[in-house]
Amino acid sequence: MTQIILGLDPGTAIVGYGIIATDGQKISHIAHGCITTSKEHPMPTRLNQIAKELRNVLRQFQPDIVAVEDLFFAKNVTTAISVAQGRGVLLQTVANLKIPVEHYTPMQVKQALTGYGRADKAQIQKMLQLLLGLSTVPHPDDAADALAIAVTCANSSKLASLKRGI
Amino acid sequence: MTQIILGLDPGTAIVGYGIIATDGQKISHIAHGCITTSKEHPMPTRLNQIAKELRNVLRQFQPDIVAVEDLFFAKNVTTAISVAQGRGVLLQTVANLKIPVEHYTPMQVKQALTGYGRADKAQIQKMLQLLLGLSTVPHPDDAADALAIAVTCANSSKLASLKRGI
Repeated sequence: MTQIILGLDPGTAIVGYGIIATDGQKISHIAHGCITTSKEHPMPTRLNQIAKELRNVLRQFQPDIVAVEDLFFAKNVTTAISVAQGRGVLLQTVANLKIPVEHYTPMQVKQALTGYGRADKAQIQKMLQLLLGLSTVPHPDDAADALAIAVTCANSSKLASLKRGI
Repeated sequence: MTQIILGLDPGTAIVGYGIIATDGQKISHIAHGCITTSKEHPMPTRLNQIAKELRNVLRQFQPDIVAVEDLFFAKNVTTAISVAQGRGVLLQTVANLKIPVEHYTPMQVKQALTGYGRADKAQIQKMLQLLLGLSTVPHPDDAADALAIAVTCANSSKLASLKRGI
C-alpha cells in the first residue's frame, strides 16, 4: 500500500513543503516547493495566506500523513515566536482535515537521512538527491528541509504502525 | 457608532476572550470567558478546537475589531513556542473572516488601564471591574486579561482612526 507523506518546514516568510510516496520499501519524490509571504503584509494576513495555500497543497496531493519538524530555539525568542505562529497554523489546518500529524526533532531528521546526528545541510541535501533520484540537490533550503522531514517520517516506525492500523 | 471589540489572551491550554462595546465615550461589558483544551489531546487537535471555538465566538458576537496581546518571553522558550502556536491560529482565524486585528504590548495594556506601566494583576482587575461596572473582578485571569486588551483597544487612537475610516 502506497502512502503519500507531506513534510512541512514551518515559518512565516517561507514555508517549505515536500511530498514523497513510499510503499514501505522504496521512497519516490512527488513534488517540493515553498509558500512565501510578503513582509509588507500584516502577520494575520500572512498566516491566513499560509493556511489557504497549505489547503491547496493538501487538496492537490491528498497526503495520508503530514510530518513537521519540532521547534528548538536556544537564542532568538522573537524568531521562535514568529515561526511558532506559522507552525500553529500549519498544525491546525492539517488537523481540520483530520489528517494525522507526526513531528520529529532536527536530530531525528539528521539521523534518518545520514545515520549521523551531526550531518550538515549540504550532506543532508546530497543524501536527499541520491535517495529520491533527483538530478540536482533539492532547493530552496526550506523545500529541501521539508523533503528531509517527509523522508524521516517514511523511515520511522510510526508510519509502520499507522500502516498496520495500530 | 458603537464598536464591538473582542480581546484575546493567547494560549494553547486556555485562551481568554473578552467582548466589550464602545461608542467612543462609554465602554460597556458584553461577555467574557475561556476556550480550554485538554493536555491529553495532541497539539494539532487542540489548535483545531481553538479555531473552531473562536469561530463560534466571532459568529456570536460579530466584533468590528479584534485585539491580541503581543508575546514577550525572556526565559521559557518552550512556553513561548506553545503560546505562539496558539496565537498564530487566533490571528489566522480572525484574518480569514477579514476582521481587522490590532496588537498591544503588556506595557500598553497596563498603561491604558491604570495610566501606570507597572500595575499588578490585581490592580488591573480591580480597574476593569470599576470601568465595566461588574459586581466582582472578572475571572479567570485569562478572561480578565482578554477584557483588559479589549479596553486598551477601545482607548487607543487606532480604534479612533478605524472609526473615521482612515
